[in-house]
Amino acid sequence: MNKSPVDLASAYRLLNPGPVVIVSVAAGERDNLFTVTWNMPAAKDPPAVVLLSGRGHFSLPFIERTGEFAINVPDVSLADAVYGCGTTSGRAVTDKFGRFGLTRQPAMKIGAPLVAEAVANLECRVEVIHDVLGSALIVARVVAAQACNEHVIDGQWSFDHGLQLLHHLSGRRFCSSGAEHVVR
Amino acid sequence: MNKSPVDLASAYRLLNPGPVVIVSVAAGERDNLFTVTWNMPAAKDPPAVVLLSGRGHFSLPFIERTGEFAINVPDVSLADAVYGCGTTSGRAVTDKFGRFGLTRQPAMKIGAPLVAEAVANLECRVEVIHDVLGSALIVARVVAAQACNEHVIDGQWSFDHGLQLLHHLSGRRFCSSGAEHVVR
Repeated sequence: MNKSPVDLASAYRLLNPGPVVIVSVAAGERDNLFTVTWNMPAAKDPPAVVLLSGRGHFSLPFIERTGEFAINVPDVSLADAVYGCGTTSGRAVTDKFGRFGLTRQPAMKIGAPLVAEAVANLECRVEVIHDVLGSALIVARVVAAQACNEHVIDGQWSFDHGLQLLHHLSGRRFCSSGAEHVVR
Repeated sequence: MNKSPVDLASAYRLLNPGPVVIVSVAAGERDNLFTVTWNMPAAKDPPAVVLLSGRGHFSLPFIERTGEFAINVPDVSLADAVYGCGTTSGRAVTDKFGRFGLTRQPAMKIGAPLVAEAVANLECRVEVIHDVLGSALIVARVVAAQACNEHVIDGQWSFDHGLQLLHHLSGRRFCSSGAEHVVR
């Protein structure tokens, strides 16, 4: 998959349609992946995101310690990996990339590896973590972004070549978005 | 459209796939509608949601004063109303229901009216408002929920009868989700 950098002012658009995402983290030799349904943009330019993590989550200390993580946006072809990354703990699976057939791609500005198979990647640095109802609401700036040349054109999702984004319903159930609607 | 109450433990699922929503507010005789792309669940049971609002937003004082609002989940047939509610201010349009062809439906537990044409409605009471990068991150409990009998079955979205949820890309561009994927 050929990817190109996405202008930071357009990066929030990569999360605008509400896809489920795979978050990647790393500290030293160890990395991990986990699935996050509850994520959203938090600012356009400069771009920021928020995502919610349980306090006992295996990867949260990686994020607290390094202040960095990446958001990897899957298309529908990665549904099995999305489900797998969301239903296994890094405590039990030491290499989720290998376990779920994903490839590490070096990030541009952070230490955590990106998921090469994802159609878009956002590199993030933590701004602040709020407590929200006992969970950690992570507020982060997007410091770099890249996306698949075929499916993101001029910083906009394009559905002209069969892109289907993945959205989580519950458990094993997902739905996909692929049809574009333009309001006149 | 026939709707039934949704069990509170299932209410978070109505927002899980990341749809764009129309938020309704009211204070005294005046009500208003505005579109929110940046929303997500924040807890499952008891259910909570978060949404982000600009500090200068016309409707924010309604929410701060009453502590209440409703989230109305549109399907693709409401794309024009979603765009309209998101691109007009309550300062200029005093009746967005009338302006965009929407019908008020009394809520069960809050004062703000629901959008009758929405396929799901979540009635919310504010828990706390955090400042996130200069915007208001509204954390709220869901106190009641209802959804269209045809498209929400046993507290789960069903795509068996042609449901297409609406997701915001940017500006006038939306995409819809309608195909279900079940991971085996």
